[in-house]
Amino acid sequence: MRVLGVDPSLRCTGYAVLDGDRNRQKVLEYGIVRTRSGEPLEEAISRIADVIEEVVRRHGPDCLAIEEVFTARNSRVALQLGHVRGAVILICQRQGLATVPYAATRIKETVAGYGRAAKEQVQHMVVKTLGLTKTPPPDAADALAAALTHIFWSEEGDRQR
Amino acid sequence: MRVLGVDPSLRCTGYAVLDGDRNRQKVLEYGIVRTRSGEPLEEAISRIADVIEEVVRRHGPDCLAIEEVFTARNSRVALQLGHVRGAVILICQRQGLATVPYAATRIKETVAGYGRAAKEQVQHMVVKTLGLTKTPPPDAADALAAALTHIFWSEEGDRQR
Repeated sequence: MRVLGVDPSLRCTGYAVLDGDRNRQKVLEYGIVRTRSGEPLEEAISRIADVIEEVVRRHGPDCLAIEEVFTARNSRVALQLGHVRGAVILICQRQGLATVPYAATRIKETVAGYGRAAKEQVQHMVVKTLGLTKTPPPDAADALAAALTHIFWSEEGDRQR
Repeated sequence: MRVLGVDPSLRCTGYAVLDGDRNRQKVLEYGIVRTRSGEPLEEAISRIADVIEEVVRRHGPDCLAIEEVFTARNSRVALQLGHVRGAVILICQRQGLATVPYAATRIKETVAGYGRAAKEQVQHMVVKTLGLTKTPPPDAADALAAALTHIFWSEEGDRQR
């Protein structure tokens, strides 16, 4: 199974591609896309979408694992997040990836054993689980965590079928 | 000048293409894209983007006039709107259109003479200004109004240069 995980945000979007199954996962790539301060919205969205599309082309993942968002700090933040999330989902949909949303609490619980784990705990556990030699930036760690969650839960789903 | 106006929303997105200048405007096309109740977000976004892309291909507008959104009723609504707006802006950006956002109050003031005009007044004035033979649905009327606003204000900008 090959999974693209994305943690979208206007300031810094994290992405990661994992290949593997419940017992063994390999990190194919991870990274972040930062937008510049004052960069027009349409250019920021477009740049993020270009990077994600390139990553999809490079690795051909089967699906997009992405955090489900129900609410945000305020409607301004929600709007910004929505713009990036919508663009990322569209790009993946057009490349034939299935979109699989996971609640933040489920991602944290899966990766760090606790649904309200801090960002640092998620980073730490991602490094440990995947045997990384260095600590990824927080947004890339969140993307790795989303992809890991899908690998664990979708097999769970397979067994239950 | 050829302008695509879009009024994005997850339930019903309006679009319109106008060609003309301050003195004479021609409606090339307008319409709405409704999403089905319970339709997965990624499919809804994708369908809206496909329609907008097709409209752009058909008429080759120079730019996208779209309502600027600063806030929303709540963060859930803001998120939904953001998803669609982000997807539409991305599609237009990729087709080479410039994105020109206009505050809702400016659109209403331009079209109906009053920044807090009701939806029905906007509909009425769009019909009157463009000499339409029937009343477009409210979301299409808003898209027509956004496009009209751009035609009026961008020429204003040209004269001031």
